[in-house]
Amino acid sequence: MGLIVQKFGGTSVATTERIRNVGHRVLEEVNKGHQAVVVVSAMGKTTDQLVSLANDLSAYPSKREMDMLLATGEQVTISLLSIALQEMGHQAVSLTGWQAGIQTEKVFSNARITDIDASKIQSLLNENQIVIVAGFQGVSSDGEITTLGRGGSDTTAVALAAALGADRCDIYTDVTGVYTSDPRYVKDARKLDRISYEEMLELAHLGAGVLHPRAVEFAKNYQIPLEVRSSMERERGTIIEEEAQMENGLVVRGVAFEKNVTRMTLFGLDNSHATLSKVFRSLAENHINVDIIIQANTGEKKSSLSFTIHDEDVQNTLSVLEKYSNEIGFDKVESETGLAKVSIVGAGMISNPGVAARMFEVIEGIDAAIKMVSTSEIKVSAVIEQEKMLDAANALHAAFKLGEVAATSVN
Amino acid sequence: MGLIVQKFGGTSVATTERIRNVGHRVLEEVNKGHQAVVVVSAMGKTTDQLVSLANDLSAYPSKREMDMLLATGEQVTISLLSIALQEMGHQAVSLTGWQAGIQTEKVFSNARITDIDASKIQSLLNENQIVIVAGFQGVSSDGEITTLGRGGSDTTAVALAAALGADRCDIYTDVTGVYTSDPRYVKDARKLDRISYEEMLELAHLGAGVLHPRAVEFAKNYQIPLEVRSSMERERGTIIEEEAQMENGLVVRGVAFEKNVTRMTLFGLDNSHATLSKVFRSLAENHINVDIIIQANTGEKKSSLSFTIHDEDVQNTLSVLEKYSNEIGFDKVESETGLAKVSIVGAGMISNPGVAARMFEVIEGIDAAIKMVSTSEIKVSAVIEQEKMLDAANALHAAFKLGEVAATSVN
Repeated sequence: MGLIVQKFGGTSVATTERIRNVGHRVLEEVNKGHQAVVVVSAMGKTTDQLVSLANDLSAYPSKREMDMLLATGEQVTISLLSIALQEMGHQAVSLTGWQAGIQTEKVFSNARITDIDASKIQSLLNENQIVIVAGFQGVSSDGEITTLGRGGSDTTAVALAAALGADRCDIYTDVTGVYTSDPRYVKDARKLDRISYEEMLELAHLGAGVLHPRAVEFAKNYQIPLEVRSSMERERGTIIEEEAQMENGLVVRGVAFEKNVTRMTLFGLDNSHATLSKVFRSLAENHINVDIIIQANTGEKKSSLSFTIHDEDVQNTLSVLEKYSNEIGFDKVESETGLAKVSIVGAGMISNPGVAARMFEVIEGIDAAIKMVSTSEIKVSAVIEQEKMLDAANALHAAFKLGEVAATSVN
Repeated sequence: MGLIVQKFGGTSVATTERIRNVGHRVLEEVNKGHQAVVVVSAMGKTTDQLVSLANDLSAYPSKREMDMLLATGEQVTISLLSIALQEMGHQAVSLTGWQAGIQTEKVFSNARITDIDASKIQSLLNENQIVIVAGFQGVSSDGEITTLGRGGSDTTAVALAAALGADRCDIYTDVTGVYTSDPRYVKDARKLDRISYEEMLELAHLGAGVLHPRAVEFAKNYQIPLEVRSSMERERGTIIEEEAQMENGLVVRGVAFEKNVTRMTLFGLDNSHATLSKVFRSLAENHINVDIIIQANTGEKKSSLSFTIHDEDVQNTLSVLEKYSNEIGFDKVESETGLAKVSIVGAGMISNPGVAARMFEVIEGIDAAIKMVSTSEIKVSAVIEQEKMLDAANALHAAFKLGEVAATSVN
């Protein structure tokens, strides 16, 4: 008998019928004798509908009022799930973020959890209640309703698991787990039984979209084992935990890819020390997300700088650079759109220097030109032409034997 | 310059366009230099939609969870109105019931306000904010979200006006004011400029539906002048205040009526002292509302008892009476459905004994049989056949000259 935190996303609670199904999944754990804390998101498209109402009234509604508005979405779901569980003959009680003691910074639309006072949840659990908590929301120290931003319900679940000393945190979603690559495009993609926090973080940032990176960081910091699994199907999911418990011998754990990448290159950039900060501050202030950044400063007076952005930000980026061109100081700018990023991820990579070389061989083997390379301790990314992306992903998946259960080391 | 509390009901905020209109109405007062606290209900059919979701999951959802669910309705409206006002260039801030300091009993679905801590609203007003408060909801001393029941937003507005020492409380609704009778059925019905709290209470209880009785009681207790007026049209509404300021010479102020009345009569009722309490406790426990009660105990051992209920409660009432017949002790029960209640209301009535007699003459004059009579200090009600109801209402309205601005005394 233990304490399990379960999180169900918007798709899993999109209709009252699905909410009833979620109730049955919760009761599976309760009937094993476990205590259950359940975190839920807003139903299906609710958040989008609320945003649309606000946009009827203002193109730029204030973040405080948006948090007030959006926080209602989860409040609807918690009450409905509680009603469903009560109808099944169980004791259940719903709590909003502020009732559950979820304290955050006073930062609207993207607050971080600062503290959790779990005493109310704990006393309800002691009364044999199933406790249903609204995800995604909290309260600031002066009583303002805040939200945690996209993916925030994952963070709520993990933070509650940490505060309550839960035995496990299960993230129910619309996929059956974490895969070695996207099964829609890579035919041999295989569900992983286990993956480390760090690997999951790289995959999350690379757009695997299964778990919010902030939730993974939180789980890592507090060493909460996570399981990502499907709310619709019965099979076990993927356990995310510390590296020590990983399958042995695995170097590369997954292949991620994303398209619509544009490479921007600034030529003749003045090498005075503040140039880089000027470039990226001006982009950040205009809400342009930059991914890979490469600069080879060879010690000469002028150098070039490349970085990647999303295709849809090209016009905006060009106009920002033009506006600040004098201040930044560069000769010309070029952009190449229609590119893609392909990445391999694995915690064992750092001690296997041959991995990157093998990756480049594979990409070259399908006649794709490598435009940019970026590496971290557990990841190598290459930017290539978009039309070669899926070929590269499949070739890498095969080359690193990710479709096989016991993947082997490189060479 | 003063402080005005304004309340807008669900119809007035049913769409984002109407919410924008409400914003303009609020700014009319603000632009005169007034401070404004605005209480709003849930948008249009929102509450019904939420109830329907809950009923998908349970025929009898718990009241606690229903309050959790329904409280989201007003929370959506407050944020949208705040966004609309900000878009118009004004400072506005929305507050839920608990944020606004509205403390209630821990009674779900029908809580009474026990206290208001207006310090947060007051400090926001001092910052020149327009303060938007969610109607209908509050928080119990142990942090549970409660609702005030139907019409509760009126009560929120009046209670806030009392707590803040407001100069006026304006109730914006979908009618232009309080009428001498229902203008859909009584052709000469006229909007009243002023009416007393007591008269309004009788009219509210009689189904005029303009203001919730509890809100009128609250306003009377704290001597808050109310104005009922239309959110769509510009004309002045009806002011509700203490009797001293009323138009002179008015005895009867309005004619109210309602159909679907059933008269139940118990014959051969044992006159032992606990009989009446047994009858009405058994009905109350089965959620049957009783309106008029008449018993003429002539000192004999057995007597008869009549009371009125809504037509739709007849079967339920008969089965309850049958179930308790031995315990209560009566010979037989008879019911007559398809009746209606017609009432005249006016604070001057108590000092004009001829009013009731005139009423009966008028009803007899249209060949309607009077089945029951009930009187209070400011009201006389008669139960008659339903098909004569509108004739009686029109005849009474004409006889008491309610269509004329300066109504005269009786005779």
